[in-house]
Amino acid sequence: MVTTAQSVADVCRAAQRASRSLSQLDTGTKDRALEAIAAAIDARAEEVLAANARDLEATADADLSAAFRDKMRLDPARVAAIAEGVRAIVALRDPVGEVIEGFRLPNGLDVRKVRVPLGVVAVIYEARPNVTIDCTALALKSGNAIVLRGSSQVAQSNAVLAAIATEAALGAGIPEGAIGLVAGGGREEMAELATQDGVVDLIVPRGGEGLKAALEEVATVPVIYAASGNCHVYVDAGADFDMAHDIVINAKTQRPGVCNSVETLLVHRDAAPAFLPRMLGSLREAGVELRADARAKAAAGALGDSLLDAVDEDWDTEFLAMILAVGVVDSVQDAVEHVNRHGSGHSEAIVTSSVASAQAFERGVDAAAVYVNASTRFTDGFEFGMGAEIGNSTQKLHARGPIGMRELCTYKYVVEGSGQVRP
Amino acid sequence: MVTTAQSVADVCRAAQRASRSLSQLDTGTKDRALEAIAAAIDARAEEVLAANARDLEATADADLSAAFRDKMRLDPARVAAIAEGVRAIVALRDPVGEVIEGFRLPNGLDVRKVRVPLGVVAVIYEARPNVTIDCTALALKSGNAIVLRGSSQVAQSNAVLAAIATEAALGAGIPEGAIGLVAGGGREEMAELATQDGVVDLIVPRGGEGLKAALEEVATVPVIYAASGNCHVYVDAGADFDMAHDIVINAKTQRPGVCNSVETLLVHRDAAPAFLPRMLGSLREAGVELRADARAKAAAGALGDSLLDAVDEDWDTEFLAMILAVGVVDSVQDAVEHVNRHGSGHSEAIVTSSVASAQAFERGVDAAAVYVNASTRFTDGFEFGMGAEIGNSTQKLHARGPIGMRELCTYKYVVEGSGQVRP
Repeated sequence: MVTTAQSVADVCRAAQRASRSLSQLDTGTKDRALEAIAAAIDARAEEVLAANARDLEATADADLSAAFRDKMRLDPARVAAIAEGVRAIVALRDPVGEVIEGFRLPNGLDVRKVRVPLGVVAVIYEARPNVTIDCTALALKSGNAIVLRGSSQVAQSNAVLAAIATEAALGAGIPEGAIGLVAGGGREEMAELATQDGVVDLIVPRGGEGLKAALEEVATVPVIYAASGNCHVYVDAGADFDMAHDIVINAKTQRPGVCNSVETLLVHRDAAPAFLPRMLGSLREAGVELRADARAKAAAGALGDSLLDAVDEDWDTEFLAMILAVGVVDSVQDAVEHVNRHGSGHSEAIVTSSVASAQAFERGVDAAAVYVNASTRFTDGFEFGMGAEIGNSTQKLHARGPIGMRELCTYKYVVEGSGQVRP
Repeated sequence: MVTTAQSVADVCRAAQRASRSLSQLDTGTKDRALEAIAAAIDARAEEVLAANARDLEATADADLSAAFRDKMRLDPARVAAIAEGVRAIVALRDPVGEVIEGFRLPNGLDVRKVRVPLGVVAVIYEARPNVTIDCTALALKSGNAIVLRGSSQVAQSNAVLAAIATEAALGAGIPEGAIGLVAGGGREEMAELATQDGVVDLIVPRGGEGLKAALEEVATVPVIYAASGNCHVYVDAGADFDMAHDIVINAKTQRPGVCNSVETLLVHRDAAPAFLPRMLGSLREAGVELRADARAKAAAGALGDSLLDAVDEDWDTEFLAMILAVGVVDSVQDAVEHVNRHGSGHSEAIVTSSVASAQAFERGVDAAAVYVNASTRFTDGFEFGMGAEIGNSTQKLHARGPIGMRELCTYKYVVEGSGQVRP
């Protein structure tokens, strides 16, 4: 079992000690450890499910949403998927040692910029127990130690998963301390974790604005916020309306509670009369509440009068629900301006047939991911081929978009010479 | 002239407005602006020198070191070198739009990770007026707006240089506000600058530990500290002693006051008796004060008794002076451990003939730059072919080592499809 008597500082220091040898481990050893973790999760699925049942029982009377309870819950298929996720990471290339660039200087020095692990990565997350294993696997494969701080509602699920992973990893040659679990979900533990300067190299919080605000107040360790997404789809004049229709339906309704779902639909004024009546009809049929500006209402035909009026704050709101704001714009430039003013820099899409419009949108929109003729829902480490993700960054420093194994690395310059000195 | 009536917040907001169109400028326009800046500096060198003379006069009675005064001082050759530095940046490739990687997903989506400007970069620096122009040129070419906060001692030099650059840049199509100068060198101005969240994207402070501590206390904007360097040269058993000798002399004496000069010499015990007597003799002859451990003294021959004893804190001190700590170690592993315990992660060198030792040192040492058979003095944006540098990072997030144009960029994912939606 994971020792829970350790203080947060103890867990972090043990992780730091482990990180020194972890950074030097060969890929074969790391992959065998991940295989062992996957096998142990499969073999001990009953233990995981029993712990999860205890978590669900212990929180039966708590005031939790149905969506939250669903995120907490494990079943045999979900446990098997966790193990499969680990195997998917085995199949990926080890980022450690990758040469990002290399060149020879005029004086003959050979310079290589080589990817190396950050050291100790901490993740603060809510609900989903699978994050415990996803993050562990990404960290270990990229040569990092991990410190996990899940939420108290699934403490037993997380503890059993971390214990299984630790035991399997130790048996496969991963150093002790490489997987740290912070027991206790209180604000004091978070503050202690967030001030481990020189021990923890990066904290990635996955959670809402409350978590972000709480961390911003106390953190002295570098933090990359896996923040919210106020995402847009813009339908250009001359777009393929069938394509636009399907993209909007997918981006809004396929999973409305996640950060890469769409919150505002913008339509070019020349497209609005032909496109909006059918689009809004389908959305309403799918159960989406529509909040439209005056021009969208006017273009919506028979539906127009029955639409809610969009108010100013709707353009700035991440609904995370079956609600969509709808507006009409005069040009792709106006769409870019609206997106840059109201968006959160997460995922933004244009549907267009025009190369010029696509280029203007791609270049003009300031966001982690800009889509042409595709759903915003693809911004995700797994979808991008990174195996999984620690989170999704909307900040510009270090990592933008999905945080995968490469983003858990830094680099160093290795410079080889034959006695060069500086004149 | 640069308007000095603006508040810090006004300067930053103007820079942010400028950054939006700057990020979209083509390379030709940016290069023409840099050429115009270089030409204007050449043409108006007398004005720059006159302003610098006023700075020197105004601080004639101030308690400033000779080294600081030398850094403040401009002469015709130094002004010409500033203009040449700008032209060197014109010659470099524009980082904006570089595709860092690109791939096609199984569903047919084409994903490109494209370099884009950060937005607004602020630099806090001391003494050297050339930094005003170096940083301006790097920022503009990489599509960023810049906010400059130099030291009060050279306020007039900086103001004239910034005004010349602004006038030339405006004439060449750079938007107004792209070059901001914060007047007033007080702590209040720094605090205001350091809390421009959502306006300033990055602050790079160039200065000592005092500046770092002051900023850490107030900054809410992301900061990359261009920190100090406690650098080592390790001479392995079986190294080429002539090469080692010249590298140590260069790394210690060529410019002892800078962060990539060496502060500790480590020698393998098998190399010490043959290497140290001559090496320490040369260093002493060059005027270097030597602080040796017992084993180094024993191996130093006739010189041994006359050497100072190294005390514990010597291993952790960045002398920035003609002082060197000298120790003997048992193996390359011990050298790596010493470097990782006492070093600041800046620049570390091994001199060796052994491939195994070189590999152990390259992989084991945790630093921005690791050298095999070369002087530590090469860690520098200009030496690395980046034209110049904003500073030198010893932190691991975002940028490590020289901060050049690429490090002033972030990236975005551009994803092109043909109607893909997420199943």
